[in-house]
Amino acid sequence: MPVITVIGDGQLARMLQTAAIELGASLRVLAAKPDASAAQVSADVRLGDYKDLDDVRLAIEGSDAVTFDHEHVPNEHANKLIDAGFNLQPQPAALIHAQDKLVMREKMKEISAPVPPFAAIESVEDATAFFDEVDGAVCLKARRGGYDGHGVWFPSTREEVETLVEKLLGDGVPLMAEKKLAFTRELSAMVARTPSGEARPWPVVQSRQENGICVEATAPAPDMSDELRKRCEVLSVTIAEELGVAGVLAVELFEYLDDNREPTIAVNELAMRPHNTGHWTQDGSVTSQFEQHLRAVLDLPLGDTATLKPVTVMVNTLGADASPEMPVYQRVREVMARFPEAKIHLYGKDHRPGRKLGHVNVTGEDLDNTREIAELAAHFIVHAEWRDGYSA
Amino acid sequence: MPVITVIGDGQLARMLQTAAIELGASLRVLAAKPDASAAQVSADVRLGDYKDLDDVRLAIEGSDAVTFDHEHVPNEHANKLIDAGFNLQPQPAALIHAQDKLVMREKMKEISAPVPPFAAIESVEDATAFFDEVDGAVCLKARRGGYDGHGVWFPSTREEVETLVEKLLGDGVPLMAEKKLAFTRELSAMVARTPSGEARPWPVVQSRQENGICVEATAPAPDMSDELRKRCEVLSVTIAEELGVAGVLAVELFEYLDDNREPTIAVNELAMRPHNTGHWTQDGSVTSQFEQHLRAVLDLPLGDTATLKPVTVMVNTLGADASPEMPVYQRVREVMARFPEAKIHLYGKDHRPGRKLGHVNVTGEDLDNTREIAELAAHFIVHAEWRDGYSA
Ligand SMILES: Nc1ncnc2c1ncn2[C@@H]1O[C@H](COP(=O)(O)OP(=O)(O)OP(=O)(O)O)[C@@H](O)[C@H]1O
Ligand SMILES: Nc1ncnc2c1ncn2[C@@H]1O[C@H](COP(=O)(O)OP(=O)(O)OP(=O)(O)O)[C@@H](O)[C@H]1O
Repeated sequence: MPVITVIGDGQLARMLQTAAIELGASLRVLAAKPDASAAQVSADVRLGDYKDLDDVRLAIEGSDAVTFDHEHVPNEHANKLIDAGFNLQPQPAALIHAQDKLVMREKMKEISAPVPPFAAIESVEDATAFFDEVDGAVCLKARRGGYDGHGVWFPSTREEVETLVEKLLGDGVPLMAEKKLAFTRELSAMVARTPSGEARPWPVVQSRQENGICVEATAPAPDMSDELRKRCEVLSVTIAEELGVAGVLAVELFEYLDDNREPTIAVNELAMRPHNTGHWTQDGSVTSQFEQHLRAVLDLPLGDTATLKPVTVMVNTLGADASPEMPVYQRVREVMARFPEAKIHLYGKDHRPGRKLGHVNVTGEDLDNTREIAELAAHFIVHAEWRDGYSA
Repeated sequence: MPVITVIGDGQLARMLQTAAIELGASLRVLAAKPDASAAQVSADVRLGDYKDLDDVRLAIEGSDAVTFDHEHVPNEHANKLIDAGFNLQPQPAALIHAQDKLVMREKMKEISAPVPPFAAIESVEDATAFFDEVDGAVCLKARRGGYDGHGVWFPSTREEVETLVEKLLGDGVPLMAEKKLAFTRELSAMVARTPSGEARPWPVVQSRQENGICVEATAPAPDMSDELRKRCEVLSVTIAEELGVAGVLAVELFEYLDDNREPTIAVNELAMRPHNTGHWTQDGSVTSQFEQHLRAVLDLPLGDTATLKPVTVMVNTLGADASPEMPVYQRVREVMARFPEAKIHLYGKDHRPGRKLGHVNVTGEDLDNTREIAELAAHFIVHAEWRDGYSA
């Protein structure tokens, strides 16, 4: 049976473990702490620092494949390990596009994937020039290290741009700018690809972000022409192929209205691992993104990505500002009692405001009803309160 | 988060672990060996002998609930642990009906659940008298310890009965006899019940046994009147309630033709744990039997038992007489390549002829097609050969 090591100890690694168990495989986890989300549920935990080459090398010894639940392993380390014969998937040549927002956009341009107008920002002059070019509709981004909306700024005046860029460049933050789009919604086109080149997309989903964090995903994305749907899927496959991705790829998209007021898309961000907008696949697709990621990194043929039900809605349960008095398992109990159809996934993490602690999936026939159940359930798990005033 | 200990280290415990992880719970395993199926995938393995009271007591210390993946923990130990305040589910008062075939049948009679005519056999005379009573259509069973058809005999003459019963009683095997039914098929009515009394049945399934071992299950059971379907479900709930079952209960049934040549049912066997005929629920039901068992033993509200697709077929992969030369992961690869819709579950066990090593679930719209895929896939995993002559 294959041994797969995952570098990372969060909920993505944890959910890879459930998929690994059913495939008869054994998942090894390189974790920072013995009680990390994934470390709690693995029989083979190696403690270490993913930024330390020796720690990683020791941890992955004897693995058939090595993969990641984040994009932060230094590429020079990854390359050394590949040279030493380790089977890392995805590889730095692909991963760089999930690490550097500017490199990604340059590549998208090269392969004719749609992106908003953008520019490298190496000086205040670069920034003000771009500001003028896009008539002030500017979005400034740290090229690297941003997550959940950290590292994204929307300066509204030329002066603000100057001050901000001066400060950020002074702090050594590599920058880029892109046109701020009046997008109508965010979409996510997910696909998995094997090193041998097989690729299978899932239906494109609609995602909702709050404060830069994904809070909800609806699969398939509602109210979309078949043509645009197809375009998203083909785009995700093209990107996976052109970049040589192995494993799961999430293509975060903006949907906006083009000059003819027709909905169209632009790429915002790539992630090369299971992604929050793909959690719905655990209960709504024949093959979950976690199983598919394992199949892909092991270069096994991919599974069917068809949906099981007309609609699946995923809602995250993020830590509330203050943890409710009601213990979490009492909250789970109440949700189970009201909604036997709710699939509750918990990551075994301690409460912290805004922290991703779990999610709820609901599958159904009807969009509004399915979403209502998923939102009510997640809200109760977070706040110990029924948003609709229900009482048991 | 609750801690659940499972006494037992086989594939049922292993699959409980995948359900536990998603529920945010932690599953502790009392295993005989560190490389047992469930021990491979648990971060909290206690080695010990489930027949040893001290081993069990040590292992379950601090658990919110304790459950089993088999019925062989001595009841006197279980009772002592309950008296000491441990939360064992299901409890001996229920479990005895899954342990002793005679006690079970007496209880079925008491609660008016249908069973074939039966008798306790304490002497050769008891046996020959019963042989005469059922006109020679006799089935002799060891009251305890039988599994997968071991402990079941079909003597065809009065003389055979005499010799067999004399030998078995001489060997100290407690016996019962029951009328041999000309059954048309075997069914399984599964249900889960909580200690608080909530019960939810799954749709009744058809199972196929070979040499006393379950090899295939089709959900829901095809070709069945709604009335009979309902009767099976109600029966499973009644039995769960009357016996005070907590957790999953499988009611193995015979379907046979009554005097009016109408299909009817009789109870053959009870199991109080996840059951082979319930593996289809992993991919074919909103709530799998493994999640439901955990919810039940924790006395949480039960999940929806609706099907996700019109048909699900589960086929076991039992060890072939000789392990094929092709490595198991190569076989898995070929099946994945041909059938992206096949859900392959492997238990991490070494090959042994006839051993339950895994199973394949396929969900679909059409019975024949779905079954064909599941059977071809399982056959290939076992024999490294396409039963239909296909070549890639
Ligand atoms: N070009 C743009 N036009 C308008 N809004 C934008 C643009 N780029 C980013 N945003 C807004 O900022 C949010 C965060 O942006 P982005 O996804 O690039 O950041 P991130 O921190 O890298 O996020 P993630 O956690 O998804 O990796 C987006 O969800 C969107 O609401
Ligand atoms: N009364 C009966 N009439 C006809 N066949 C019977 C009868 N009882 C048992 N059998 C046959 O023997 C097989 C095994 O019987 P039974 O299920 O009681 O044994 P077991 O070893 O306890 O099985 P399990 O592994 O399901 O617990 C049945 O699947 C059926 O084929």
